Parts: sequence; C-alpha cells; structure tokens
Amino acid sequence: MSGFPEWLPEQRIVEQQVTDTLRRVFELHGFASVETRAVEPLEQLLRKGEIDKEVYVLRRLQAEEGDPEPDRAKQLGLHYDLTVPFARYVLENAGRLDFPFRRYQIQKAWRGERPQEGRYREFTQADIDVIGLDALSFHYEAEMPVVMAEVFAALPLPPMRMQVNNRKLIEGFYRGLGARDVPAVLRSVDKLDKIGPERVLTALVGDAGLTTAEAAACLELAEISGTDAEVADRVRSLGVTDDLLDQGLQELVAVLDAVQDVPREGFELVADLKVARGLDYYTGTVYETQMQGYEHIGSVCSGGRYDALATDGRTTYPGVGISFGVTRTLGPLLSRGAITASRATPTCVLVALADDGSRGSAASVAASLRRRGVPVEVSPEASRFGKQIRYAERRGIPFVWFPQPESGGHEVRDIRSGTQVPADPGTWDPPAADLRPTLVTGAPR
Amino acid sequence: MSGFPEWLPEQRIVEQQVTDTLRRVFELHGFASVETRAVEPLEQLLRKGEIDKEVYVLRRLQAEEGDPEPDRAKQLGLHYDLTVPFARYVLENAGRLDFPFRRYQIQKAWRGERPQEGRYREFTQADIDVIGLDALSFHYEAEMPVVMAEVFAALPLPPMRMQVNNRKLIEGFYRGLGARDVPAVLRSVDKLDKIGPERVLTALVGDAGLTTAEAAACLELAEISGTDAEVADRVRSLGVTDDLLDQGLQELVAVLDAVQDVPREGFELVADLKVARGLDYYTGTVYETQMQGYEHIGSVCSGGRYDALATDGRTTYPGVGISFGVTRTLGPLLSRGAITASRATPTCVLVALADDGSRGSAASVAASLRRRGVPVEVSPEASRFGKQIRYAERRGIPFVWFPQPESGGHEVRDIRSGTQVPADPGTWDPPAADLRPTLVTGAPR
Repeated sequence: MSGFPEWLPEQRIVEQQVTDTLRRVFELHGFASVETRAVEPLEQLLRKGEIDKEVYVLRRLQAEEGDPEPDRAKQLGLHYDLTVPFARYVLENAGRLDFPFRRYQIQKAWRGERPQEGRYREFTQADIDVIGLDALSFHYEAEMPVVMAEVFAALPLPPMRMQVNNRKLIEGFYRGLGARDVPAVLRSVDKLDKIGPERVLTALVGDAGLTTAEAAACLELAEISGTDAEVADRVRSLGVTDDLLDQGLQELVAVLDAVQDVPREGFELVADLKVARGLDYYTGTVYETQMQGYEHIGSVCSGGRYDALATDGRTTYPGVGISFGVTRTLGPLLSRGAITASRATPTCVLVALADDGSRGSAASVAASLRRRGVPVEVSPEASRFGKQIRYAERRGIPFVWFPQPESGGHEVRDIRSGTQVPADPGTWDPPAADLRPTLVTGAPR
Repeated sequence: MSGFPEWLPEQRIVEQQVTDTLRRVFELHGFASVETRAVEPLEQLLRKGEIDKEVYVLRRLQAEEGDPEPDRAKQLGLHYDLTVPFARYVLENAGRLDFPFRRYQIQKAWRGERPQEGRYREFTQADIDVIGLDALSFHYEAEMPVVMAEVFAALPLPPMRMQVNNRKLIEGFYRGLGARDVPAVLRSVDKLDKIGPERVLTALVGDAGLTTAEAAACLELAEISGTDAEVADRVRSLGVTDDLLDQGLQELVAVLDAVQDVPREGFELVADLKVARGLDYYTGTVYETQMQGYEHIGSVCSGGRYDALATDGRTTYPGVGISFGVTRTLGPLLSRGAITASRATPTCVLVALADDGSRGSAASVAASLRRRGVPVEVSPEASRFGKQIRYAERRGIPFVWFPQPESGGHEVRDIRSGTQVPADPGTWDPPAADLRPTLVTGAPR
C-alpha cells in the first residue's frame, strides 16, 4: 500500500535505535515527553487553511449507515503534524503545566498526499519545542541546533547540513531598504530556488514595488551564506540600516556561536539568508536541514521561532521548535539498503537443546543470562546441533550456548568465528558490542 | 474529547516506563519489534465480521468534494487490534521472515465504541506472538505467562491474576460426555458469568441437547480452578474420558508448572476452567487477566493459541500470543492518581545562573554532566536564586547546581534536604535513584 511504509524486523531495529537516540538526547536536555491523540476536530486542523486537501477524515462505519452527517467542523481528522495538536494541548492544560515548558513528541502523523520518495501518507515525526507564557527568551532559539547536533553526532546517518536564517533580519532588511509591502518581498524571494534570480527580480519590481537597485539588494542578501560572524559583516556591507535588522543579525550570529563547542560530527550549521520557511508563523530564527546525497527529498529537520504558537485571547504562548522527519529520513536509507542492523532480532544467545527433556534446564540457563540483561532464546526444538546453529545464523544471533548438565559444565560458541569456550551461566557476559544489534551502513543500492 | 485519553507529563512518564519495561522484557526473551501501518483495507478489518460497528473509516477530505465513492472493500479503516494487521504482515512478508517468528508490537489501536472506564476509542496495546510455519510446538503456550510474569514483577501495578484454560480440555470433555453440538455447549457455558448457573443449565439442556446430568457435569467442570496438578485430578474425578481432554489436561498442567521457577511478585497464574475466550479462533491454551481492585474493567491481558493465525491457501501459520492493554490498565490508575511519577520532567539537575553573562559557562557544566548521562537544564533566566530554586521545585527537579567560576569551585544542592556540597562537573553523579523519575503509587482517589 503506497505511502504507508512497513519495515522488516532488521529495518525496524534501525528505526528504533534512531528514535531511542532522539529520546535519549531530548531527555538529557530536559525535554518531557508528550503524546497527543491521533485525531483533532477538523476546525482545529483546518485553521491554517492551506493544506486541507491532505487531511484524512474519520467516520465510524456505523455512522455511514443512516446517522445524520456530523457538523463538518466537529468531524475528526488524523493530525498531519505534531504542532497543531501540541498547541491545542498547551491551551487545554495551561493551568497544569509549568512554563517555559520543554516538551518532545515522537509520534506518527498522516497526510493524504501523493506518495514519493521521502513523502509518506503515514510517517513518524520527532519534535522538540520550548513554550513560554507571554514571553520566551531568545536563547532557546540557539539551543535547538545544539540539541540536534548531539542527535546527529550519535547516529550513523549521512552528513546533515542545517541552514539557519532569521526573519527579523530579512524583514528588517526589506524595511530598511524602503519596501512598503514586506510580505510581498518575502513571497517573491521565497521563490528563488524554484524560478531563479531573474524572475524573482521581475517580481520584486512588478509585484512588490521595489526599484531595480532595491530588488538587486534583496537578491544579494539572499545569496549570502556562511558559518560565522563574517556573515553579519557581509550583510552590513550592503549598506542597509534598521533596528530589526540589527537584532536579527545579532541573533543569527549567536545561533552560529552556540554550536561551536558542541560535538558536530556529521553536522554542519550554516547561515543561509535565502531560507524563509514560507509565509508561515515564524518570527525569529528559522531552520531547515538537507541530508547529503538526499537533497531531493527536501528538508528533514525544520522549524523556527513563533511569537504565538497558541493563544486563548488573554494569554499568548510564544515558542521555538524543530521537527525531525524520522520516516522521511530513514525511508530512503532503509529502502536502498544504505543502513541496516547487524541482526534481525534482539536475541544475543540461543540456548541449544540436547533433547526435549532438557528444556527445563535450558530455561534456567536462559533466565540466568537474562538477569544480567542478555537477550536469550531457547532453541525451538531439540534437532541436530547443526540445524540449531543454522537457526541462529539465519537471524544473525552471534552466540549458541550448549548446556552440558551431565558433565556439570557449559560451553558457548561464537558462531561467527567458531570459537567454543567453557562458560558459567551465572557470570558469562557477551562482549558489549554484541549485546544489542548495531547499525551497519553500506553503499546504497 | 471522550475516549481519547491524553496525559500530563508526569502521567506520560508512567506510561513510558511501563512500555519501556514491556519492551525490555520482550527483547530479553528474543521478541523482535514490528510496527504495522495504522490503516487496513476494510475487507481485511471486517473478515471476523462481528465488530464492524467499531471501525473508524478514513477518507481524504479532498475525496469528499466530488470524487466517486471508493469500493467499500478497498476503503481504509484504522485497525482495532494488532492481531489482524500482524496476520496480514506475516502473509505479505513470509518469504523474508524466519519461522518460528517471535515478534512484539506496541502500538495504538482505535475503536469507535462508547467510552467508559477501561474502554477507550484510542488505546495502546502491547502484543507478543510466536508464529510457526505449518506447525508450532506446544511449549510456546507455556512461555506466554512466564514473559508476562516477568513484566508484572518489574512494575508497581496492582496484583495481576492470570486465568488460563485449554480449549482442547473443555471441548474434549464435552465430546467425551457425549455432546453432539460442542460449539453450542461452549456458547452456553461462556455465558456463565452473565446469566448464572441455572439459566446456563436450562440452555445446555434446551439449546445444546444435553441431559440434565451431562449439563450438571459441564457446570461442575466450569467451577474447577486451582494453581497446580490437583486441578487435573478434580477434572478426572468427573469420570469423563477422551483423548483430546487428556491432551488438554497435560497442557494445562504444563502451563502452570512453567511459572513455578519465575519471579511472580504481584502475579498469580490460576487454572480457571470456565474461561473460554468466546467462540474466537482459539484452539489450545487461552489466557485472561484481572487486575485486583479493577475487575470491573475486564481482562487487561488476554490471548491464546490459534491453529491458523493466517493462511494463504497453501501455507498455514499457527501461533500463540498475548495482548496487554496498556491504556486499559493505566487509564483508571492514572485518572485516579493511584500511580504517578516522582517528577514531571526527565531533568535531574538545574544549573543556576548568577547573571546573563554566565550562560556559556553554565552550558559547559550542563554538557559535562550530560556526557555521563545526567539529564540537565540550564535555568531559563538569571533571576534571584530563590526563584530559580522554585522553578526546580515546581517540576520536582531534585538538584540545583551553582557554578562559581570566580572561586573556581562549584556547589550542588539537594533541594529536598537543603544540603549543599562542593562538586566537580567532571565527576559528580546524582544517586542512581534520582537519575530518572521513579514511579510512585498511592491510594487511588
């Protein structure tokens, strides 16, 4: 069924280890887990308006057979992201949460759009957000790339290139330049990758009312990128002055600075001044991320600062968040065999059976090993040892245990090397590297 | 929204620790994780026929506005359990799985039924199954309660009482008694708890065609329960002989025997000969489980042996499985406050800020502690220390760290006791009991 990926056990182990790493790093940074229900009223899902065609609407099968059609706004739909439900959760539970509230959320979402590589109808997202009550300090915007850098440094994924920009910077620049319709300028520049600089120039003059020189300055701004404070110097050299621009420049440089002391293997943070993240609700730092060799699937980790994630009329909840596309990232890697697990089961040791009567003593050996955290199975049947070893081989189980109750001893064989040694079920441990399946990367098919 | 439970962060920590324990124990026993998509074609979901009224049907919002109604069998519905999707997964992937295949699956399911305590429209199930290719040894039936006993021994839940029976035993008994319509006898006895012994007796004579003496023997069988081989003696004393009955008795005693050497704190396994698990597809051992003090919510952990989980016409896949209702079990406990977490966040240490300029050095302290696996947050702002300590108190964060870079030293305060001691961010560790939130049980509201 197209767009609803399902993985084999060895692929699922990859997905689990990725979500385990996300959770571990998020919790190390004090983010608390939240899960929201899979459904929201349509009125909640359609508030943003643009993507209503992608929502899956739910109806009880029973209701199809005669009941009156429910009020459309009250109908339930599956959520298409984790931001809309989280905003609703914050409003509903505001009195029982402590702000600033740090939460992570790793859950499935659904969109009825046409499936393609990196686009699924059912997919897992991993989001972190920090939400304030009426105010939220800037420093949280600098924290998001730090957390994701730690995630990426801990995972054998292709190198990630996170691009940041700042909406205050670009909006301040356009304002300082004299633009009267800042959203129109944003809209035009946002099309740069799609339609190219010449047509953007035409639009900036035609639609946004800029002079040719002003339009050219906008394009010059969009072409600036870099990894340190030199970016700010290049912007200032364009000669535009504006308070909001200054604030945006300071913030952008602070975001770049924050990752300097962080482990960044496989991760690069780049200021890229053409990134705007559409005309969304972002009001400060914005993030998007390309996976090297898989740029065609689009951004795998995006987000930004918003001054009003939610509001109930009296209180406003500003926030900053970032969302990692687990399925979008892993789908292409798993399908192409670029990453897999060292075995298809958690089992580290198979306890062999000499005969059917020894199942009880084999179970005791297994229980001893499990008490020290070693995943163990007892052999399905007392067939020839060669057949039992092949059972382990097929699944990638590294060790086969031979209980030898008559002689009072036990032996364990590493079936990869064939080495078989005496062992005590009360004390033997596998090498740490064999305890759990490990991730294996290879050339993609 | 009734029937779609959502938890506060401290409740969600309870749910996470329960699913973590389920996963840990399942993996220690060599079960591999599988996730299936949330949706199945209606034709797949309605194969069993009985519960079609509970299915949520999906439709793209776009499709409502003009597209022809899709073929009903091809429409998608949300799965209402994990067994139907797993059977489909096994058939689809049979050539790429190794049998006997041991899998666990912890996922949400949806049913459109009327919500009540312990019944939800969205709920999490945790299933284990072992599936064979054409054959599956009995010993896996004895393994299911062993695995669940380990789960329950590791969790601070109310005591669990698992009741087992064996379909061969009861069907053999009815057959040996001379019943010509064994399913009719099963159907009548299955109503025992609902309609009482007198009306069952009437039904056994009227509907199932038994003599009064035969009907009385069926009721005597249903009244038998016990925890050891004495159960078999009591059945045999009823004077019925049958090969299938004998096999069922042997299997039942073997299931009881298997848990004798297993840690069983908070867990009891009882043979209860009135348990039949309806007229389902079960063909051997059946399980159901009552949670002490919460018997009114029904069984929280059920399953059994089935000779054909799935078949493609040529190959049949027999299996045995058990399904633990995570939401059904935790919903009533969380709602009543019978169980909660020691804090509402993973954070163990809050690093205090003397002034805004020291955020960088505070981040270094935090990074040092995190490298040893300690969850840390830096204080949101450099307010008075009293205010920063209250931030930690409100969330249950046990430690506040005071960097003192001028004096070259650091101090850490246990805010529960007020004890403050010098500490080195490169070596200090919290007591193991404080590293993660712990589960706290109390009298239910």
